[in-house]
Amino acid sequence: MIIVFRKDASDQQIEHVIERVEEWGLSPNVSRGTERTIVGVIGDEAILRSKPLEALPGVEHVMPVLKPYKRASAEMRPERTRIRVPAVHDEGAPLFIGGTGVVLIAGPCAVENYDLMLEVGRRVKAAGAHMLRGGAFKPRTSPYSFQGLGREGLEILRAVRGETGLPVVTEVMDTKDVELVSEYADLLQIGARNMQNFTLLKEAGRSRRPVVLKRGMANTIEEWLMSAEYIMNAGNEQVILCERGIRTIETLTRNTLDLSAVPVVRRESHLPVMVDPSHGCGHADLVPALVRGAIAAGADAVMVEVHPDPERALSDGPQSLRPAEFERLVEEAGRVARAVERSLEPEGK
Amino acid sequence: MIIVFRKDASDQQIEHVIERVEEWGLSPNVSRGTERTIVGVIGDEAILRSKPLEALPGVEHVMPVLKPYKRASAEMRPERTRIRVPAVHDEGAPLFIGGTGVVLIAGPCAVENYDLMLEVGRRVKAAGAHMLRGGAFKPRTSPYSFQGLGREGLEILRAVRGETGLPVVTEVMDTKDVELVSEYADLLQIGARNMQNFTLLKEAGRSRRPVVLKRGMANTIEEWLMSAEYIMNAGNEQVILCERGIRTIETLTRNTLDLSAVPVVRRESHLPVMVDPSHGCGHADLVPALVRGAIAAGADAVMVEVHPDPERALSDGPQSLRPAEFERLVEEAGRVARAVERSLEPEGK
Amino acid sequence: MIIVFRKDASDQQIEHVIERVEEWGLSPNVSRGTERTIVGVIGDEAILRSKPLEALPGVEHVMPVLKPYKRASAEMRPERTRIRVPAVHDEGAPLFIGGTGVVLIAGPCAVENYDLMLEVGRRVKAAGAHMLRGGAFKPRTSPYSFQGLGREGLEILRAVRGETGLPVVTEVMDTKDVELVSEYADLLQIGARNMQNFTLLKEAGRSRRPVVLKRGMANTIEEWLMSAEYIMNAGNEQVILCERGIRTIETLTRNTLDLSAVPVVRRESHLPVMVDPSHGCGHADLVPALVRGAIAAGADAVMVEVHPDPERALSDGPQSLRPAEFERLVEEAGRVARAVERSLEPEGK
Amino acid sequence: MIIVFRKDASDQQIEHVIERVEEWGLSPNVSRGTERTIVGVIGDEAILRSKPLEALPGVEHVMPVLKPYKRASAEMRPERTRIRVPAVHDEGAPLFIGGTGVVLIAGPCAVENYDLMLEVGRRVKAAGAHMLRGGAFKPRTSPYSFQGLGREGLEILRAVRGETGLPVVTEVMDTKDVELVSEYADLLQIGARNMQNFTLLKEAGRSRRPVVLKRGMANTIEEWLMSAEYIMNAGNEQVILCERGIRTIETLTRNTLDLSAVPVVRRESHLPVMVDPSHGCGHADLVPALVRGAIAAGADAVMVEVHPDPERALSDGPQSLRPAEFERLVEEAGRVARAVERSLEPEGK
Repeated sequence: MIIVFRKDASDQQIEHVIERVEEWGLSPNVSRGTERTIVGVIGDEAILRSKPLEALPGVEHVMPVLKPYKRASAEMRPERTRIRVPAVHDEGAPLFIGGTGVVLIAGPCAVENYDLMLEVGRRVKAAGAHMLRGGAFKPRTSPYSFQGLGREGLEILRAVRGETGLPVVTEVMDTKDVELVSEYADLLQIGARNMQNFTLLKEAGRSRRPVVLKRGMANTIEEWLMSAEYIMNAGNEQVILCERGIRTIETLTRNTLDLSAVPVVRRESHLPVMVDPSHGCGHADLVPALVRGAIAAGADAVMVEVHPDPERALSDGPQSLRPAEFERLVEEAGRVARAVERSLEPEGK
Repeated sequence: MIIVFRKDASDQQIEHVIERVEEWGLSPNVSRGTERTIVGVIGDEAILRSKPLEALPGVEHVMPVLKPYKRASAEMRPERTRIRVPAVHDEGAPLFIGGTGVVLIAGPCAVENYDLMLEVGRRVKAAGAHMLRGGAFKPRTSPYSFQGLGREGLEILRAVRGETGLPVVTEVMDTKDVELVSEYADLLQIGARNMQNFTLLKEAGRSRRPVVLKRGMANTIEEWLMSAEYIMNAGNEQVILCERGIRTIETLTRNTLDLSAVPVVRRESHLPVMVDPSHGCGHADLVPALVRGAIAAGADAVMVEVHPDPERALSDGPQSLRPAEFERLVEEAGRVARAVERSLEPEGK
Repeated sequence: MIIVFRKDASDQQIEHVIERVEEWGLSPNVSRGTERTIVGVIGDEAILRSKPLEALPGVEHVMPVLKPYKRASAEMRPERTRIRVPAVHDEGAPLFIGGTGVVLIAGPCAVENYDLMLEVGRRVKAAGAHMLRGGAFKPRTSPYSFQGLGREGLEILRAVRGETGLPVVTEVMDTKDVELVSEYADLLQIGARNMQNFTLLKEAGRSRRPVVLKRGMANTIEEWLMSAEYIMNAGNEQVILCERGIRTIETLTRNTLDLSAVPVVRRESHLPVMVDPSHGCGHADLVPALVRGAIAAGADAVMVEVHPDPERALSDGPQSLRPAEFERLVEEAGRVARAVERSLEPEGK
Repeated sequence: MIIVFRKDASDQQIEHVIERVEEWGLSPNVSRGTERTIVGVIGDEAILRSKPLEALPGVEHVMPVLKPYKRASAEMRPERTRIRVPAVHDEGAPLFIGGTGVVLIAGPCAVENYDLMLEVGRRVKAAGAHMLRGGAFKPRTSPYSFQGLGREGLEILRAVRGETGLPVVTEVMDTKDVELVSEYADLLQIGARNMQNFTLLKEAGRSRRPVVLKRGMANTIEEWLMSAEYIMNAGNEQVILCERGIRTIETLTRNTLDLSAVPVVRRESHLPVMVDPSHGCGHADLVPALVRGAIAAGADAVMVEVHPDPERALSDGPQSLRPAEFERLVEEAGRVARAVERSLEPEGK
C-alpha cells in the first residue's frame, strides 16, 4: 500500500500516520520527495484495505499495490481450474468447463412449460449443445412481468434433463432457495443484478453445485472477481465467471458485451470464463457474430438463448435464436473453435 | 405502443402482427408512410410490454408510449406523498418526510459499538439531526472486510434510539432478515446493490415500515421507480427514493451524485426523494457543498455519514464528517432550506 | 511514480528498470516485499509520465503520485483566479468571474436573427443577467441541422452587445476562426465536443480573450484540467471551467449534470467554475432546480438558455426557458446565492 | 415522427401542434387513447428533427421513427461499399477494404524517426501486413507529452511507403492540415477525440482520400454514422468506420472494445468496419485475443500497434506488440479469417 501525503501535510501528520501503521503491526517505509512525502507499507495489505487511511489528516490518497482477490487469483493457483459436470445418466461422460473443449449451453430464457422445454432440449441437443438453460425464478424489471414458474419450473427442468441427458443451469435469486435449486440444477446461476448480493453469494458458497456468476451490469472485473471470492471463501471453489454485457452509452444494443473481459479474466484468474451474448446484445441477429468472437477471444463456454417460437416467448423473445439458427451457429462456432486450437468436445473420459 | 416495421417488411408480416395484436384484445391503428409502416396500439400498454414484439418478423423496433410505473407515478396520484415517522417517545412529535421540512439523517456508516453509537447519536441530535443512521448488516465488496454486527448492531441501535429519541434507519440485505430488521428500524433501507433484488423488494413490500430505496449504481430513474413499484405492488406504499450516486467515467469521486434526479423524481413521482452525498462522492470534504446543492435542488431529506473519529471507522471513514463539521453543515443547510422556502423543521403536530 | 513489479519479475528485469530510470536522471528507491517489489521514483514525474514504463518487462503497473496538471493546479497558485471582463461601454464597471458575485449568462442556443437576439438581450438584462450567450458557429450531430449563421451571427452579437451593454460569450469551433471570433466575443467558448481538440486549445491559448472550456461528455475532471493546461501553457491563463453534464446510463435527462465537479474543481484548481444546466439536463423544467443546486454547491457562474419562443427555436428549444421563467429563476438564484454568502453582484469597481 | 402528449394536455395544445405540423407541409395523424393522445407525422422526418417539438406546450416527448442517417445507411445502398486503395508502385495490385479479404494495418503509434519506421515497415510487411500506420500529428492528453513530428513525420512516412510498398494511414487533427496530409496519406484518419469535430469532418469530405473515422470514446453508433454522414454529405463517400473502444466503468482495460459494433455497423450501414484493439484495450497482452475476436465477429480490417522496442516508444508503448508477436498474431488471424470464410488476401486485380 502506498500512502501519498498532501503537499502541505505537516510532519506531525506524517508521524501520526506512521504510528498508526506500526500499531497495526506493519512496517512503513518513508520517502520524502520535493513535491510529496509518500509512505510505502510492506506486509499484509488486507489489514490496510480495511483501514480508512484516507481519513487520516494530511493523507491525499492511498494506492493499493496488490490485487484484492486471493482464492480467485491466477497468482495463487497458476493452473487453470477445470470444472467437472457429471453426466446425467450413468453411461454418459462428464463435461469439463475450462478444458480444451468449448461448452455450448442453450435454451429459452424462462421455463414456460414442459412441452416447449422438451422441444428446445431435443433440438439444441441434436444441434450440438452440451447443456440446457432455462429460468424458473426470473428477475424482471417490472412487477407486472412474468416472474417464472418457480418450483414447477424446476420440476420441468428435471424431467427434460432426464429425457435429454443434458445437464441444466438455472438461476437462484434468493438465499432461501439455494438449497432447493441445488437439488435440481447441475450449475447454479447467480444473475447480474445479484452479483453483489453478498448474502446470496455466501449461501451459494455453501452449495455443492458449481456456480455460474454473471458479471453485474456496472461492475468492474475486479469487483466480479471479489464476488467470486465471496463464494470461494464460503467453501465452494467451483465458480465460472460469465460475461453478459455491461451498461454503456450505446443504445442500439441492450448492453455492451465486453469481450476483452475474456482475456483479462484468463490473465487474472484460474477460473473458467463463459460468455452470454444473448443478454449481452439483446438482438438475435447479432448473437452469431458475438458467439464467434467470444470463442475466438478464448471463452471456455458460451450460453445462448434459443426458443422455438420467439414471438411467443414469455421473456426475452427478441434475443432468442430459432433452433435452425442455432444449428448454423454451432457449425460456425466449431470452425472458429478449431481455428483457435480448441473444439466443441468438452466431454472427458 | 408504437410498432415500427422494417422498410422491407412484407404485407404478410404486417398483417401477422396486426392479427397478434387483435388476439391480445387490442386495437391496432395502421399508418403506411413512404419510408415505413407503423402501427399504433391503443389500450392497455402493460399487455404489450410483456410481449416480445421485436421478435415478430418484419418488426424493426417498438416504442412504448406510456410510463411503465403506475403506483409510483405522479399521474396516478398528483398530491405528493408525505411519510409519517412516529415519535420514539410518547411526548414527541412525529416526523414527516416529503413535507415542507427537510429531514436530516446522520450517523456512522456501520454500527461499531454502543459507546460510539451513543456519542454520535447525542452529537448529531444536538447539531440538529432528526434521525440516526447506522448499518448492522453491511454489504462490502470484499469478504475480508467488516461485515457488520448483525443482530447485536440492531440491539445497539434500539438502545441509542431510546436514549436519544432519534428514530433510526438501517439496512436490510436479505429476505430472511426483513422481519427482524423491521422490529428495530423506523425506516428500512434497501441498498444500491440490492435495488433490483426483486425478492427482497417484495418482502419489504410486506413490511409495515417505510422503505428507503437507494438507487442502483447503474440504474436509470425509470428502473428505480419500477423497483419502488415492486414494493408498492406488494402492499407497502411508503417508499422514499434515495439518490446516492451512479457510476460514471469520473474517478476523483467515488460515484457521480445525480442531483438532476431530484427534480426528475419530483416530476415523475409523488414519492419523497432523499439524497446521500456521502456515498455519492466518497470524500468528506465534498459533502457540505453537495448537501447544500441537494437541498437547493429540492431534496426532501439528506443522509450524511458522521463519525467522531473517522480514521478509526470500520467502514467508509474517508467520507465521514466529524461532529463539528456536521454542526457547521446544519447551519448552512438551514440557510439554503429557507432560501428555497423550506425549513429544517419536519416535525408535525 | 510508483512502479509495481509482477510477482514473478526476475532480478534482471528489476535491475533493467532501475537502470533505465537512472538513465533518465532520476533516483529509484527499491522496496522488496514478500508479494511484490516496488520502486518509487523521486524527482520530476513529468519525465516518467512520458515513458512507457508498463512496456518494460516484469512491470505490472505504474501509479503516478503527483497530479499531471501544473498551471491549472491549486497547489501551484493557492489564491483563486478572478477573471475580469471589461465593461462594454466606457462608463460601465467590469465583471469579475471567480469573485464573490455569481455571474449569470443567458441567451438563446443559436444566434438566429437580429430582432430575436435584441429581444432576448433586453429581456435577460432586465431580469438581471450579466452576460449574453448565443452561438454563431454551431456543432450539430447531423449535417442536415442548422449550422449557425457564422460571421453574420457574430455581427448580430456585436450589435446587440452594443445596444444592451452585455458582454457576450460565443463558441469557436475551428482553429481558423479563433482570431475572427476573438474580435467579437468577450469570452471565447470551446464546446464539449472540442474539449480534446488540442490544436484548437493551443490556438485559443494564443488569443487575448478569456476562454470558457466546457467539459467533454466523457471526460474526467483530470482530463478537463489538462485541457485547461493546454490553453494556459500556450500563453492564456484566463480559463473558466464549465461543467455541462456527462454521458451516463440515465435516459430521462440528456446528460447527467455533475455538480460534484464544482467542489472538486474548487479544491483542485484556482480557476473559476461555471455550470450550464441547460445542456446538462436538456429539459427546461429541470433547469431552475439545477441552477439553484449549482449556486448552492459553489459555482462562480451559471449559463442558461433563454428563448422568447422556444417552440420556434432553431436549436435546443426544449431546454430553453422563456424570459418570464428566467426572471423567476433570477430571484431564486439570488436567494440561494445569499444563503451561501455570495450575491448576484459580480461588478467590481 | 411520433408526438406523445402529456396526459393533461388540453385540446387547444393538441390543436396548436397539429397546426404547426401542417404549416411545415406535413400530415399529422391523430390517435386519442384513454391515457394519451399521440400524433404520428408522415412525411420527411428530417424536417421534424430540426424542430423543437418538445418545446411545444402539452408535448411530453417525441420519438423519431426513421434512422437519421441516409448516405451511410444500408437501406439507401444495400450492396456493401468496397474501398479501393491503389498500389504504391505501378506493378502492385490495389487493396480493397470491405471485400472478402481482411486488411491488416500495423505500425507504431507515432512516427519517431526514419530508421525505426523503416524497420517496422519491413518487419510488418514480412509478417503479412497490408498497410502501415504511424502518427505524425498526435493528440495527447497532456501538453507536455510528445506531440508528433508533424510535416517531418509525413516525409518519413512517404519515404518508408516508397521503400516498402505499403500504403499508409495517418491522422489529421486540424482543418488546416487536411490538404497537406492528403498529399502523403493513402488513408486519412480522424481520431476518436475529433469524431464530432464537425469542421474537420466537412474538410475531410472535400479530400480525395478515403477516411478512417474512429468512433468517439463516448459516442453511440448512431452518432458515429452521423459523423460519417458529414463526410459523405461533403462529397467523400469513402469512409471506413473504426471501432477503438468506448469509455465504461471498467478500469483494467484502457477502454472497452465494443465488438458488437461490428455486426451492428454491418447491419445498419454499407460502409466497411475496422477494429483497433490496441487503443481499445491498452495492453499488448490482450491484443491477440481481440484481433481474433474482431475478425471472427466480421471486421473488414484490423489496425494494430507494433513497435520494435516498446519500452522506448514515444507513445503508447504498453499497448504495442513486438514484431515477433505480430508475426504469431498474423498466423492466428489467418486461421480465424478462414474459419469465417474470409482470408488475409485483400488484393484485387
